[in-house]
Formats: sequence, C-alpha cells, structure tokens
Amino acid sequence: MSEKTGQKFNRRNMLISASAAGAGLVLGGGGGYALAHTQGQQAMQQTSNNDIISFYGEKQAGITTPQQDHLHFAAFNLTTQDSNEVASLLRIWTVAAAAMTSGKPIGEGAFPDHAPPPDTGEALGLPAANLTITFGFGPTLFTKDGKDRYGLAARRPEALVDLPSLPGDALDPTRSGGDLCVQACSDNPLVAFHAVRNLARQARGLATIRWSQLGFNRTASTSTQQETPRNLMGFKDGTNNLKVEDPSLMDQHVWAGNEAASWMHGGSYLVARRIRMHLESWDRDFLADQEKVFGRRKVSGAPLTGKQEFDAVDLTAKHPDGTSIIATNAHIRLAREDDNIRILRRGYSFTDGMDKVTGELDAGLFFIAFQRDPRKQFIPLQQKLGQRDLLNEYITHNGSAIFACPPGTQPGGFIGETLFA
Amino acid sequence: MSEKTGQKFNRRNMLISASAAGAGLVLGGGGGYALAHTQGQQAMQQTSNNDIISFYGEKQAGITTPQQDHLHFAAFNLTTQDSNEVASLLRIWTVAAAAMTSGKPIGEGAFPDHAPPPDTGEALGLPAANLTITFGFGPTLFTKDGKDRYGLAARRPEALVDLPSLPGDALDPTRSGGDLCVQACSDNPLVAFHAVRNLARQARGLATIRWSQLGFNRTASTSTQQETPRNLMGFKDGTNNLKVEDPSLMDQHVWAGNEAASWMHGGSYLVARRIRMHLESWDRDFLADQEKVFGRRKVSGAPLTGKQEFDAVDLTAKHPDGTSIIATNAHIRLAREDDNIRILRRGYSFTDGMDKVTGELDAGLFFIAFQRDPRKQFIPLQQKLGQRDLLNEYITHNGSAIFACPPGTQPGGFIGETLFA
Repeated sequence: MSEKTGQKFNRRNMLISASAAGAGLVLGGGGGYALAHTQGQQAMQQTSNNDIISFYGEKQAGITTPQQDHLHFAAFNLTTQDSNEVASLLRIWTVAAAAMTSGKPIGEGAFPDHAPPPDTGEALGLPAANLTITFGFGPTLFTKDGKDRYGLAARRPEALVDLPSLPGDALDPTRSGGDLCVQACSDNPLVAFHAVRNLARQARGLATIRWSQLGFNRTASTSTQQETPRNLMGFKDGTNNLKVEDPSLMDQHVWAGNEAASWMHGGSYLVARRIRMHLESWDRDFLADQEKVFGRRKVSGAPLTGKQEFDAVDLTAKHPDGTSIIATNAHIRLAREDDNIRILRRGYSFTDGMDKVTGELDAGLFFIAFQRDPRKQFIPLQQKLGQRDLLNEYITHNGSAIFACPPGTQPGGFIGETLFA
Repeated sequence: MSEKTGQKFNRRNMLISASAAGAGLVLGGGGGYALAHTQGQQAMQQTSNNDIISFYGEKQAGITTPQQDHLHFAAFNLTTQDSNEVASLLRIWTVAAAAMTSGKPIGEGAFPDHAPPPDTGEALGLPAANLTITFGFGPTLFTKDGKDRYGLAARRPEALVDLPSLPGDALDPTRSGGDLCVQACSDNPLVAFHAVRNLARQARGLATIRWSQLGFNRTASTSTQQETPRNLMGFKDGTNNLKVEDPSLMDQHVWAGNEAASWMHGGSYLVARRIRMHLESWDRDFLADQEKVFGRRKVSGAPLTGKQEFDAVDLTAKHPDGTSIIATNAHIRLAREDDNIRILRRGYSFTDGMDKVTGELDAGLFFIAFQRDPRKQFIPLQQKLGQRDLLNEYITHNGSAIFACPPGTQPGGFIGETLFA
C-alpha cells in the first residue's frame, strides 16, 4: 500500500488532472480559467469561471451574493459552557469554510491512514459551484433562560430581538431558534450538503444540530441577471425583490450601519421562516381566485393591472363596479404598500416528503430574508401580512428563527472576531 | 381582464419568446436548436439540445436513460376497488407524463379562469431537463392480503416476488411496498418534484401516496459518458455498473425477455431500498479502515490493488503476510465475485434532515436497480452482501419495494396496456 502516500489534492486540481486524462471533462478558455463538467448527453454545464465566491472579505458572502440554486441550512445548540470554546469553534469553522468555498477539502496535505479523514469526501472532485457559507448568532447565544451564558449579554444587539408572536404563527419549537446558524448555498446540492455535514462534524462536543433544512430551488431573484423563479404555488413572487447590484440599496436596507452595535457594522440580520404551503387546498382553488390572492397572473407573472411581469403595479386601478383590481388584501398589495420597508429575500422551496399525520405533502417555502433591522423591516411587514394577506388561508408558518450575521473576516481572523475580541 | 384569454403556452415556447424579448435567455445554434438558460454569474447552463427524452417508445424511459441528477420517487396505494379505474388512472398518467416530459404543462390550451388550473404551474418556463417518468406495478396490485383485487392475480409475473427477508433488514413498512410506483428523474429537481406532485394530484380519489423519496444527487454512473460519482461515505462505488450504451448487456441483464409473462416483454423489474448510512460512526473510522471496507481508495477511487479508478480489481493479490489485499468481505469483492450477477444501478443520495430520535443525520443511499429477474439478480446479491459485507456495520436498509415496470407505449396507448388489455 505504499502508493498511498500521494493522496494530496484539491478539488480543482483533481478536475484539471482528470480533464488532462480525457475523463469526460472539458477545459474551457477565456476569462481566466473556465472549467466545464460534462455528463454526457445529460450535460448540465456549469460555466465555472466564476464558480468560486471568496469567503474572506469585509462582509460575509452569501448575503448579497446572487442567489445560488440550492440550500442546506442548519441551526445549532451550543453544548459547551465556555466562551473560549465557542470562539475556538468559530475559528475552526472559518478555516474549514474558507477551504470548502475554494473547492478544497478540509485539512492540509494527504489524509493520514490511521485517523479519520479530516474531510468526509463526498464532494472531492466537484467544483465549489459558488458555495457560500454564512454564519449567524441567535439571541440565545447572548441570553438563555435569563442567563448570561458566555458573558456576552451586554453585547447583544438591540436589533437582535426575540421575534414577537406573529399573527397566524403555529411554530414548532424543534424547527425554531438556535444559538448559531450556518447557511450553505451552492449551485450543487451535494456541495451544500457536504459543507453543513462537515461543520457539524467539527462541532462535536461543542454544539449539535438543533434543526436543519434543505432547499431544492431558489424562490427569489436577487440579481438583475436572474429571472424571477416560481414558488410551489406556481406563482412568480418577489419580482420586486432588492437586487444586489445596487450597493446603495444594500447599505440602506441590508447592512447594519452606525446605528448598530459596533461589532455588527457590516453585518446583517437573517430571519428564517419555514412556511408550509397547503398545496392540496391551493391546487383545488380556481385560477381566478389564485390570481386574486397574489394580485398577479399565474402564467405571465404580470400584475393584474398589467400585461408583463415587470409592468408597474397600479394599486389604484378599479373594476367598473368600483372594486380594486388588485384586491385590498392581495399579497402583492400588502407587500408593496409601504415602499419604505424592503428586505432582501433569499428563500428556497422545500419538501420533506409526506406529512405522516395528514398524508399531505410537507412542502413550501423556506423563507430567508436579510435586513438592516428586523424591528423596522421583517416584523412590521409580517405583522401586516399575517393579519390580512389572502395567502394566509393556504400557508402556515411552522418554523422561525433570527440570527445576527457578523461582518466578514480576513485570512488569519475568524467570523465573530469582532464579538469575541 | 379580457387580456387573460391568451394564456396559451408551453414551456418551450415561453422560453423562446422570453429569449426573443432579451429576458436573459440565449438561443444557441447548432445541433437542431439549443437553448441555454443563464442565471447571471451563477450560470448553471443547461445545454438543452438533448434536454427532452421521448416518453413514448417500445421501452419505458428512465431505465436505460443515462442517469439524471435528481430524483423524486413515490409509491402509491390504490384506493379504488375497480380495475377499470386503475386502467383509467394509467391512461390519465400516460397523457400527463408525455406532456411533462416534453416540457409542457398538463392540459391543453389556456387555463380556464373558473376552474383549478390543470397544472400546478411551478415548472412553467423551465426546460424538461431530461425528465423521465417511469411507472411500475407492485405485488399488491395483483394480490393483497390473499385477495385478487382486480382480477389480475393470474397475470402476476413469477419474477415479481415478494422480496424475502434479507440479512440485516430493519424495514419500516411506511417506507416500503406500494401498489404502483412513479420514478421521476430530471436534471432539475423542481421539474422532478412537479411531475410527482401533479401525478399524485390526478390520482385523487383513486390512489394516495404511500411514501415518497427525494434524491439530491445521483450515485451511479450508467453511461460511458458519466464520471462515477461519490456516495455520502465519500467513496466511488459502482465503477463497474452496467453502461446503457451496450444494448446486448441491457438485453441480457435489464430487459425482461421471452422467459417473462408476455405482457412484461420489454419491461424491467425495479428494486428500491432506502439504505440509511450511519454517517456519524463512519466519519469516526480511520481512512485505512474505510478503504478496507470498500476495497477501494477514498480519494482516487482505485481498487486497493491498483492506482487508477478503472484499474482491474485483482481479487487474488495478497499482502506479504498472506492475507488478501482486497479483504474477504470487502464490498467490492462481494459485489464482483460472481460476475454473472449484474444489475443496472440507478441510485441517489438522500437526506431527510435530522433523525428526531437519535439527533443523527437521516441520510444515505436510495438504492434503485433495474434487472431482468430479481430472483436471479438482486435477491442473491443482497443475500450475500447482507450476510458478509463489511459495510453492514455502517448501514441499515429501512425501506424496500419491488415493482414490475411494464414496456413502453405509443401515442394513443397507455403504460400498462399490455396488462389491462
């Protein structure tokens, strides 16, 4: 087994060498270096000259990164009592996340024979596929059951509130909350899965997964380059989402500024909601009713007052009988009426198979939104929607969490250094 | 709302018209017509000149189709007592499957306003992404609790046995069995999800979903054009899988021939097994032990007797101390020793989040294999593996099902016509 001592690699190098060996890989030209990974007639080409998103930077990646196709999200319970161990975990996670987002496995050099491999290996040979890993801190990192667990209570940001009871909530505590969160997004679901799995593995003895969620299709468009996708109700929702190409809008609505605790400057607040859709009921509804609920046409995505998706929404237009064309409680109206409230939506469709109790599909929208201050953005928005939105008949919020995502870091530093310093 | 009367479309036409409007779509040239669907810098290009797999044909698609990246599988319980209604459901499903695999929604013409839309709509605008939909019949379609439910008992194929108890089984009945199955595979997970959801919807009143499984990454290579992917243990398994490019191997090992019930000529038998991997234990194992279990190196995928993935497996090679280099009970040895037993593996990695009882990851391999006769292929193979495979320490089979997939059909016919005729 002496030939074993050569198991040194990174995912990108493996691709290149496999390509050189003609093993079904194409090395593209132009734009630096481009790799395309072909799979025969079923070609799903990933044009990957841009397939690595830098992990290090002033801001964390995965917030204003144009939204990737797949999500693996996990919330963790810390089990350690020691603040130094929390910081130490964040250091380990930072190094691992930097490796994985570069398309490299965790660990340096060859895997030793007589130890567990430092990386679980299922993503070896795959490109990073725009993997981003974004970390956040829940309210219970600061205060739990009234206790200042880690001496951080005084540093809890005011904006990191416990989300209040919201109209229509039916929250499952086992799908809610968490001391830490990890959001892994990639255009390859296996790469996102691998990231969370390996971070959870590194956390052993310090933290355990409280809940996790896979998302199999993005439901938002966060870039001017992306089409608006459809949710599982078959509608284009979020046509007017913030687009990451406009830094002034990001500064205004997404990034915590001087009003925030200083350690949160350049961070953002993540709200996650598991929104179960009652698809069986929805699917029985007439097309005209479905369109009334959203205020949009199903096929074209156009507002009911227009013909094309991006036509202006006319909230004042009336039918001849004097009723509003876009109903008083239509989703599009409530989400837009107060144009000062804007959030960066970054949600995903999910399905977790059948609900064993009802026999219905356990599926819907795993809503994720980033914002500068949830007290002024998500909370008032959801208070309004939860009370009045026609959509409420067809959805239930059964999971909920809020996290403060700190700013980014540089090589040698770690995510959370501004809090733990 | 008079402009509504124009909601006539198909998914492909929508793409082309969107392209003409410059809405972020690229109309490619060469090879007939190629569509590429760009999503900004996160470009996941689907080269879709081959993105439609014909539904109609002598054989069902989705068996010897080069394996797509994503799976949505469902097993159904029939609730109707009437054989004519079963045939009627299969007719409806055939028409719907033919539409969806062509990239079209279910239903003809514009969606009427005052009825539920015939298609749930979440895949509108998406290419078919090589969608295949494959139907199968479980043993309980023929005989259930000793009863000949539909007058079909005499036509039950001998090869459609109830799978015997296999060593190490820990089967959950709610993840096993089923009267009918639907295997939807696509390179877009939303397209696969949409297919099963809509077929389940059409079955209302006649059949309900018994269990379902999403697969997020293929674990087999079924084409000479595909690389061998890694399973969630980080290993390349199934390097020597049958490849669909060789029709004589398909005739020999996959398609039911003259030995079968005549209605099954050109059909195949599907065995599905939900194989939970105990990843927390596996991840603690030393690299050398993991490699001993599989008989392959983790990083390169090479057999322990070679240097490259496709090097010949030398089952006779010994260490200087006389022990076999590929251990007596290594997975690769047991799966290969009897080279006459070959199956077409078409499995997927799955994860269903956390196991609420153990707090461990509920993840593993959703094994699917097609074969000519399970009595001579899957059953003896799994009897051997289940008794001796070193891998057994790390896996549990907790779901199991067998289905007879009938031959294909032509426009105007329906899947199952040879049985119900």
